Amino acid sequence: MERKLITGAVLVEDGEARGTRADLLMEGGLIAAIFRGGAPEGIDAARFNATECAILPGLVNGHLHAHSNLAKGMGDRWTLEMSLTNAPWISGVRSLDEIYASAAIGAAEMLLKGCTAAYDMCLEFPLPTIEGVDAVARAYDDVGMRATIAPMASDQPFLGAVPGLRDHLVGEGVEGLPQMSSEGPEGLLARFRALAQGWRWPSEKIRFGLGPAIPFICSDAFLTGVRDLSAEFGIGIHTHVSESKVQTVVSGESFGETITAKLHRLGLLGPRFTAAHGVWLDGDDMRRMADTGANVIHNPASNFRLGSGVADVRAFLDAGVHVGLGTDGASCADGLNMFEAMRLATHASRVFGAPVDSWIGAREALQAATTGSARALGFGDSIGVLREGSAADIVILDLRAPHYTPMNDLSAQIVYAEDGTGVRDVFVGGRCVVRERRLTTIDYDRLRRQTQAAADRLHGANAQTRARLQHAARLAEAYCRCFISRETPARRYICE
Amino acid sequence: MERKLITGAVLVEDGEARGTRADLLMEGGLIAAIFRGGAPEGIDAARFNATECAILPGLVNGHLHAHSNLAKGMGDRWTLEMSLTNAPWISGVRSLDEIYASAAIGAAEMLLKGCTAAYDMCLEFPLPTIEGVDAVARAYDDVGMRATIAPMASDQPFLGAVPGLRDHLVGEGVEGLPQMSSEGPEGLLARFRALAQGWRWPSEKIRFGLGPAIPFICSDAFLTGVRDLSAEFGIGIHTHVSESKVQTVVSGESFGETITAKLHRLGLLGPRFTAAHGVWLDGDDMRRMADTGANVIHNPASNFRLGSGVADVRAFLDAGVHVGLGTDGASCADGLNMFEAMRLATHASRVFGAPVDSWIGAREALQAATTGSARALGFGDSIGVLREGSAADIVILDLRAPHYTPMNDLSAQIVYAEDGTGVRDVFVGGRCVVRERRLTTIDYDRLRRQTQAAADRLHGANAQTRARLQHAARLAEAYCRCFISRETPARRYICE
Repeated sequence: MERKLITGAVLVEDGEARGTRADLLMEGGLIAAIFRGGAPEGIDAARFNATECAILPGLVNGHLHAHSNLAKGMGDRWTLEMSLTNAPWISGVRSLDEIYASAAIGAAEMLLKGCTAAYDMCLEFPLPTIEGVDAVARAYDDVGMRATIAPMASDQPFLGAVPGLRDHLVGEGVEGLPQMSSEGPEGLLARFRALAQGWRWPSEKIRFGLGPAIPFICSDAFLTGVRDLSAEFGIGIHTHVSESKVQTVVSGESFGETITAKLHRLGLLGPRFTAAHGVWLDGDDMRRMADTGANVIHNPASNFRLGSGVADVRAFLDAGVHVGLGTDGASCADGLNMFEAMRLATHASRVFGAPVDSWIGAREALQAATTGSARALGFGDSIGVLREGSAADIVILDLRAPHYTPMNDLSAQIVYAEDGTGVRDVFVGGRCVVRERRLTTIDYDRLRRQTQAAADRLHGANAQTRARLQHAARLAEAYCRCFISRETPARRYICE
Repeated sequence: MERKLITGAVLVEDGEARGTRADLLMEGGLIAAIFRGGAPEGIDAARFNATECAILPGLVNGHLHAHSNLAKGMGDRWTLEMSLTNAPWISGVRSLDEIYASAAIGAAEMLLKGCTAAYDMCLEFPLPTIEGVDAVARAYDDVGMRATIAPMASDQPFLGAVPGLRDHLVGEGVEGLPQMSSEGPEGLLARFRALAQGWRWPSEKIRFGLGPAIPFICSDAFLTGVRDLSAEFGIGIHTHVSESKVQTVVSGESFGETITAKLHRLGLLGPRFTAAHGVWLDGDDMRRMADTGANVIHNPASNFRLGSGVADVRAFLDAGVHVGLGTDGASCADGLNMFEAMRLATHASRVFGAPVDSWIGAREALQAATTGSARALGFGDSIGVLREGSAADIVILDLRAPHYTPMNDLSAQIVYAEDGTGVRDVFVGGRCVVRERRLTTIDYDRLRRQTQAAADRLHGANAQTRARLQHAARLAEAYCRCFISRETPARRYICE
């Protein structure tokens, strides 16, 4: 592969208010050398001018859903429970091309906004298929992004998991509609096994993971099967843990233990385990996560937008939990902007009324969005850092942008002020995938047309289901509020 | 003035999921006509192609500080009280050129990010001058933005207003440093009068306003003098009200009434009165604001970043308060992005644990950021709307951006997903001030160099003051925490 030398930039390095002047040599997809102060004369490499720019490691989105990319802007005022009730029409009856388009437009957006790898819990409705998951993988590969893809599945319906909810909604349009999965644990585990065995993508680019959707709608048989597959194939488990208060209360009342205690007891927690959200984890839960080396992905945009409560990331860090950062799906973090996710992580930490030392600072947010998420994806420390030998996944930020003028503190200005308008170029594995704010890898206008056409067709195809469920979702929300009024050890709302 | 016809776009209009196809004619700085469905043949006007674009009214930033634009990225973990203690080195010893550059870089950024008018509480340290305020006005005019400029002043020092704080910090570096103002009320009022009388800018472009900094550091004599000047000249009053819990508790204990009750008793509240923040307003305070027709500017980014607490905007709206939206200064909303401010307004409303009907939705956020703020600035309904006869202050959004693909709900996608990367062109009063993401009005690279040079010089000139105050600021914060632990009628933190 061609050698490329990025010249004239500064590296985002801790301790240097304005970054460190350096040239960066890429070869074979890796960072071959970093020349602090400037490269020596005579290096045989193609030059890439980055004067008045900063070099940031590509950001890593620790949690999103490829299928949600068609739902952006929907559900102005939806809780998670409303979103789950509405799922059949949001994600129903997609063709493989539509599954591909939904994943590809999200990958395109993430790259354009400085994110080079993602942990994707894609949903195929009602069941994950080899072809569907492969379409998602192909989308990431075509657009030029790294990903770990964990298809989402569960063997129990959401409406049945909340005591009394299904009965409450009978007569309101929920009868006879397809649920997210319609197979028992054996069938789902067989699908996961087939996917793991047949995986055709190289693990340094596109990895496979296991996505038990939400533990409170997964049987013990399914969860332990997932645990065994994870060990057998050495692959990650990604699930939603204690995202909403409703789930947390219901799980505690149904199982007589917290969901994390149950996952621990069943042997799922460990370095390959990644919990998305963790808003309602209590102190004991956090210790279980920390003791086993599990990862938590903080999704502040989603937690704010869905009113799920505010995760206590300082408590995670104090407990020793590995923390990454994500946007969540485009239905609740509509713009998939990891710069904003970092900023929101600092914001979320400051609404508890606690002393400033407990607030998440700019450097902690940056770390969560790079090395923190990279670990959760299973990429270890091969991405998310600027170091000789690590992957050449690099974002070039234009320091001529007004939010870098004047330059006071490069790291802080990236976290507090970058909104995506400063992203000029992006490299993944040394390949220039975004050049002057345009994708080099795909025909973007063609993808746009495909994506809009998919959304338009699905809007019609799911119209009847939509009409039946929108009212039911509001009733579900009102019903679920009785669980929100319960007392829990964790406090994550202002007016509890 | 030239007639211009914007063609091929959609208007952001409520009730239309994908906007309304329309051409828009501008003449004499106003919207001369809106042709829904397309303009008739033969209109004599220069064509401006906006195919695959949306037309949004220019956003209005209801609260910021021109001087803060040199401080972006500073104060990673600062409360408001730390920021106030540090003020002398952040804003000290500026030349007129430096005051100009600080205002101009902020105006440049706001225009590039779709904001066409702002309410600016500029600070000149230690005292406002005619030349300094004029430099700020000139900056907005040169860059091509509308503004209401309310120079900030107070006749009492912050350190003296918090009981015991100054004594606590004696020996810690605060002695002998200049305070924000060093004049009694008569002197300050004379300065304000001179500014109002000598105002040379047309009121439809750059207006003058009165900026008593924070009521708890303003004497009754100063406040009532401001009230009288406001009535005499028909100009706005802009101040910070109940921004932090410290201020709110101290004001209550010092005055025996809330700050809003005091302002009401002194006769300041009314349609020309604008309170920034209002985080800690209680129900009676909100009624006072509503009954008098006063405005509140919500600044969610700043409130999050400074840990000031979460304002209850639904309660404002229920009480009938006029609500606008702002970023606050670049030291606490570093990127001055009004799209993000709208999104954060929806986020902030959802951390109370209240039912979805109480959440701020996309359309309410959009309204606050346009007509809500416009009213506070004193521009009434002449800006912030797309209507024949209103000002041609217009933002062209590129709907090819991935966050508009697919298009499901234009208003919601603007609020939940636009980060500034979709802003293509901006018009103010029919003049194209941003064309293809570049300013047409000024030499931006020259302004950048000026701004960086100003920051560099000031960094040196204020180094000693900085060294003395940074430690004192931390002590001030620790001291002020005793006020944060008090009980107040309003709850705005999770762990109170």
